[in-house]
Amino acid sequence: MSYQPTPEDKFSFGLWTVGWQGRDPFGDATREALDPVESVRRLAELGAHGVTFHDDDLIPFGASETERESHVKRFRQALDATGLVVPMATTNLFTHPVFKDGGFTANDRDVRRFALRKTIRNIDLAAELGAKVYVAWGGREGAESGGAKDIRCALDRMKEAFDLLGEYVTQQGYDLRFAIEPKPNEPRGDILLPTVGHALAFIEQLERPELYGVNPEVGHEQMAGLNYAHGIAQALWAGKLFHLDLNGQSGIKYDQDLRFGGGDLRAAFWTVDLLETGGYEGSRHFDFKPPRTEDYDGVWASAAGCMRNYLILKDRAAAFRADPEVQEALRASRLDELAQPTAADGVAGLLADRGAYEEFDVETAAARGMAFEHLDQLAMDHLLGARG
Amino acid sequence: MSYQPTPEDKFSFGLWTVGWQGRDPFGDATREALDPVESVRRLAELGAHGVTFHDDDLIPFGASETERESHVKRFRQALDATGLVVPMATTNLFTHPVFKDGGFTANDRDVRRFALRKTIRNIDLAAELGAKVYVAWGGREGAESGGAKDIRCALDRMKEAFDLLGEYVTQQGYDLRFAIEPKPNEPRGDILLPTVGHALAFIEQLERPELYGVNPEVGHEQMAGLNYAHGIAQALWAGKLFHLDLNGQSGIKYDQDLRFGGGDLRAAFWTVDLLETGGYEGSRHFDFKPPRTEDYDGVWASAAGCMRNYLILKDRAAAFRADPEVQEALRASRLDELAQPTAADGVAGLLADRGAYEEFDVETAAARGMAFEHLDQLAMDHLLGARG
Amino acid sequence: MSYQPTPEDKFSFGLWTVGWQGRDPFGDATREALDPVESVRRLAELGAHGVTFHDDDLIPFGASETERESHVKRFRQALDATGLVVPMATTNLFTHPVFKDGGFTANDRDVRRFALRKTIRNIDLAAELGAKVYVAWGGREGAESGGAKDIRCALDRMKEAFDLLGEYVTQQGYDLRFAIEPKPNEPRGDILLPTVGHALAFIEQLERPELYGVNPEVGHEQMAGLNYAHGIAQALWAGKLFHLDLNGQSGIKYDQDLRFGGGDLRAAFWTVDLLETGGYEGSRHFDFKPPRTEDYDGVWASAAGCMRNYLILKDRAAAFRADPEVQEALRASRLDELAQPTAADGVAGLLADRGAYEEFDVETAAARGMAFEHLDQLAMDHLLGARG
Amino acid sequence: MSYQPTPEDKFSFGLWTVGWQGRDPFGDATREALDPVESVRRLAELGAHGVTFHDDDLIPFGASETERESHVKRFRQALDATGLVVPMATTNLFTHPVFKDGGFTANDRDVRRFALRKTIRNIDLAAELGAKVYVAWGGREGAESGGAKDIRCALDRMKEAFDLLGEYVTQQGYDLRFAIEPKPNEPRGDILLPTVGHALAFIEQLERPELYGVNPEVGHEQMAGLNYAHGIAQALWAGKLFHLDLNGQSGIKYDQDLRFGGGDLRAAFWTVDLLETGGYEGSRHFDFKPPRTEDYDGVWASAAGCMRNYLILKDRAAAFRADPEVQEALRASRLDELAQPTAADGVAGLLADRGAYEEFDVETAAARGMAFEHLDQLAMDHLLGARG
Repeated sequence: MSYQPTPEDKFSFGLWTVGWQGRDPFGDATREALDPVESVRRLAELGAHGVTFHDDDLIPFGASETERESHVKRFRQALDATGLVVPMATTNLFTHPVFKDGGFTANDRDVRRFALRKTIRNIDLAAELGAKVYVAWGGREGAESGGAKDIRCALDRMKEAFDLLGEYVTQQGYDLRFAIEPKPNEPRGDILLPTVGHALAFIEQLERPELYGVNPEVGHEQMAGLNYAHGIAQALWAGKLFHLDLNGQSGIKYDQDLRFGGGDLRAAFWTVDLLETGGYEGSRHFDFKPPRTEDYDGVWASAAGCMRNYLILKDRAAAFRADPEVQEALRASRLDELAQPTAADGVAGLLADRGAYEEFDVETAAARGMAFEHLDQLAMDHLLGARG
Repeated sequence: MSYQPTPEDKFSFGLWTVGWQGRDPFGDATREALDPVESVRRLAELGAHGVTFHDDDLIPFGASETERESHVKRFRQALDATGLVVPMATTNLFTHPVFKDGGFTANDRDVRRFALRKTIRNIDLAAELGAKVYVAWGGREGAESGGAKDIRCALDRMKEAFDLLGEYVTQQGYDLRFAIEPKPNEPRGDILLPTVGHALAFIEQLERPELYGVNPEVGHEQMAGLNYAHGIAQALWAGKLFHLDLNGQSGIKYDQDLRFGGGDLRAAFWTVDLLETGGYEGSRHFDFKPPRTEDYDGVWASAAGCMRNYLILKDRAAAFRADPEVQEALRASRLDELAQPTAADGVAGLLADRGAYEEFDVETAAARGMAFEHLDQLAMDHLLGARG
Repeated sequence: MSYQPTPEDKFSFGLWTVGWQGRDPFGDATREALDPVESVRRLAELGAHGVTFHDDDLIPFGASETERESHVKRFRQALDATGLVVPMATTNLFTHPVFKDGGFTANDRDVRRFALRKTIRNIDLAAELGAKVYVAWGGREGAESGGAKDIRCALDRMKEAFDLLGEYVTQQGYDLRFAIEPKPNEPRGDILLPTVGHALAFIEQLERPELYGVNPEVGHEQMAGLNYAHGIAQALWAGKLFHLDLNGQSGIKYDQDLRFGGGDLRAAFWTVDLLETGGYEGSRHFDFKPPRTEDYDGVWASAAGCMRNYLILKDRAAAFRADPEVQEALRASRLDELAQPTAADGVAGLLADRGAYEEFDVETAAARGMAFEHLDQLAMDHLLGARG
Repeated sequence: MSYQPTPEDKFSFGLWTVGWQGRDPFGDATREALDPVESVRRLAELGAHGVTFHDDDLIPFGASETERESHVKRFRQALDATGLVVPMATTNLFTHPVFKDGGFTANDRDVRRFALRKTIRNIDLAAELGAKVYVAWGGREGAESGGAKDIRCALDRMKEAFDLLGEYVTQQGYDLRFAIEPKPNEPRGDILLPTVGHALAFIEQLERPELYGVNPEVGHEQMAGLNYAHGIAQALWAGKLFHLDLNGQSGIKYDQDLRFGGGDLRAAFWTVDLLETGGYEGSRHFDFKPPRTEDYDGVWASAAGCMRNYLILKDRAAAFRADPEVQEALRASRLDELAQPTAADGVAGLLADRGAYEEFDVETAAARGMAFEHLDQLAMDHLLGARG
């Protein structure tokens, strides 16, 4: 198979991904700055359908109104020329030193107000460019030491910020929903809303919960040792998977942002399997950093690799699900029983059923094997293209 | 100071903690079984106010009705004799091989029904003994491999189970609320509802969300590298900290269940600081395992150490909060500003405020130091008893 | 391809792997005990060439001399009948409560002496059965708390033990070398010689370093977040990879002992690539635990899966190395240059070479891309069977 | 007590620590550059005895010879004026993009030669300034993907580099030894010589092993979940603790470089206990990063905190060791027995001793408690200043 992406595959990339210059905590940039217009052109050539951005990716922080207009105009022309869409946009509330203690939850009130205004300004642009999702990654909403942040106050401020933004998009009539991006740590020692779960729980406390979902990133969940596919499954279950960030991570360490397929490959397989069967309709968005060892040839090879790996895994996951022996193995592992209600008969029915307890043959039930190893080996065979 | 616990401190212990015989994945029991009555007596002597239990801690799995009554009677007599209360009870849905694929979310429907009946049976006992909280730790609700569990189906089953239990306690008129205990992994490769956040989010999907809260365990959150105090702060913020499990853990590894104060001591300080000032009213419950190197002298020393360490930290946290220099440092770090609304003036006010954006002096704001290091050193000094 | 193992593939399994009954920290055994003779027979049928054992796997702790002889005799008959060899044996110094503080480094001197005698006894049997490697995993050589173990004293005792065992095998003229197995933690909070590196360093302090090498286990290194292939590469580089334990692990958590191929699949690919090209001559030994969800059908499926996955990866790694485009990519990434000496001209030559420093064009050198992403994508394609 | 440091305490700081401007992977510098002369002056005022540096900390990369001399002269004058010494120096082989694939093990041979020349140049300066230790942190000696680095070749190149440097200092007659600094990952996905153990093992393969020791950093070992005190104990045991980097780290995550005392406080206590009793003679060197939330007041508060915390812990550890109840507890835990040889009677004596095996009362021995919990609680009491 060719595994050549097309816009129908709905792949998108952040400007900050291919445009990452390779500045890391111990080293200077290894690549020249990349013109967003060039990124749009190259991504379109590679087969992507969309491009996303932080405000400062497109318009340098502090640019004048005229400069801003010029940047937006060039970008829009590039979109028009290539047919690329902007499925999502977001705000940079972490690079400038003014955000060193966060944006929406900075201890300094004026910083919080500035952060909100900066966000609103880019929401306008996002809406103008047709984005349907606005991502919020609270990059520095957190702390290194226990006294530095009253967490309940900070959550109050976080709620206040999101409620205000929800009010704003409602007032403006924008067709835009928010996707909150969790991360456990880095660049802060501990970050608020550290996992998909915390973000989902937070959303339920907002004034208009229907406006907010999550934007889980593969590496962010894996930095907490969590199963990414499980996380997005819970988000899908709650109707809250509004967007996602695909990349790779090799275990619990600094945020690696490897290309998709790098890091935990089996996790990537199950992720694609779920996305393709679980009703996710959004963009397959890559948020990765081409390693700073690479020149721009390597950058584009890396971007192409993200899409190629997704397509290979999509192909393998489909073959896995279609394989009659797999279907038989799923039954042998009683996945069909898991799909059945446990107690459609209600409390009364359950209590009246002596077979459920008094006469339940525990030892016989305990002796049944689950046959998970056989099933998983079939998955491995499909993943590796080693069936048949 | 004496740091001698009294019942007013509301310390409680699970029967399975002091009664742990030291069986681990690589070794046999190192201690004889402990009579629950003896545990009650010793815990009372040490100054605890309560004792908690899994059904099987008190009544061996498979005991006859007569045996059951005898065990309960002896236990109740011990409670009466010592004045110890039962603030919480829970179900063992993990030791017997029948639960090898979980309880409420086992693929086998009959196992799920048995798990529910086993739980209901112990809920009756919990209510009878006056417990106000019923903990649910889904010990084996999870999987090692991606095909073995359809997570959305499993969450459906989990919801069904909790809704049914909520219906049951409501029908019975029990004054009992549920506390769901998250854990990221072990004994399963990945466990459903892996963190406080995931459990809080799950609760919002239940029929009677008001009946359910969380039971966060120190080590469980730390096994995912998460900040425990942050986790319980979010639970408190959501009004959902119904119970907790205090212990110690040395970083991301197997579940250690060290005595409270072991593991991350600074985290323990901030935990106590939050519990004592954050409105938590429940039992200070210890869920630890005295290391299997210990004989019963060591077990009781370990239990006493949990309470002693809590009291020392409580003393230190109170001194920290009362210290005028600390209060000054908190102001210098603008914790007072964090407590103020960001935009009480609403969208319109914020947008109209040129000082918030157009005329905001970003560079001056960026240059302000947060003074967190001074504040944290004061905390360290108090923690270490090195002030003054 | 068939991926059907044969004895030429040199696969071996521990009796304790397929024989694991599924007892874990939270649950009782889910499988009946397995007769070692049955294990030998089944492993032979599956295509293994060898079987390994702890003393207590074969002869229950505390067995009489007569019982011992009977167990050994039956085992030997099974070996003879099947042609299976015993490439390695080891001692159980962790299951019995007497070893709760370790064996060679227990604080109690009499326990240390008992541990040595128990080891010597099984060394005799190992030699008798033709084993060439004797593995030493210091299961409980460690501590949970800082005061409990003087590490330098413990290392003295560890050295004393290994020196004595080396003396013993030398005196006896056994053709047997030791392989020390590192592990960072579990069942102790911290274990001595926690990684391949620590064990390699320790060996250099022994009286007869040539007698000792390492036995790295995939999951043990990965429990410390370390790259397993890098670890065994350093061991090979030092001439010390005497044996190894292949299995799977999903990141930093409890010791999972998944079947080989489970966990980090990309790491498994690079491991096989190195083993097949790096001069490792020993047995491909699997030290895994079939999940306790499985009955014995699942156990054997799991054992078969270990070998199958190895053979698939071996096939893929060979194709990767043979692919001309890969060879070109390796050159583009200058792997050939890495194989060249840096300064065969010595200090004087290097200092005299102005091109090396004074006239070195740093910026041009800095601008060269390493082309690692293209190379890694080729590896991924081969791993996934997606080339061509 | 005052806990006011003096030069006798032998505290030293890297120029890059207090001089860190706060550039992190997600943010720009928050602090102005700091003049090294100012750092020297302030560190002297705070009570430090020494200052250390990377070449580029003192002399900007690419400076002319004249500029270089001027920088060195000013620095030397500041040292003379304050009395601060330079106990250690090191090379920056990671910031400039030319080192993006490493220094001594870069795939590009010319980069490796440049790295060696850059190192030699700074060794000359280190010797000139009286440094006795030259640290080598292989910041980027590693890889993100398996094909990008042949580890055995890379170790050959690493050995070649260190052998050549050893040859150079020997030829020059410098009184300078090397200390290799391990780190598991960041900024590379995996770094060579990832732990103290790996570095100790590597040293044994060098031509002049006596010239090389290790420079373990608290956070680096803890990033692999390893016990820092255990690591430096093994280094001391091998006579190889030539230098160390004290700081703090909150578990397995990105490299935090918290001030000493931050992160794992109990680990810091045992570290100081070992350093003060274990014969370490070198500088107590802090390698930390004042959080980027801080202005320069915070920077100096943070530096002062490092020393203060060390002195508090030193005081507490001394009290712990001097406490008769602790000494009794150590005996009760048989630490004295651990200090005794296991088998001074040799193989023959051990084999002849029926009490060691045939007549050893295993069950009685197994029943002895180790009393570690009581001992650890005493340590906790001393650490917290809660004794008496």
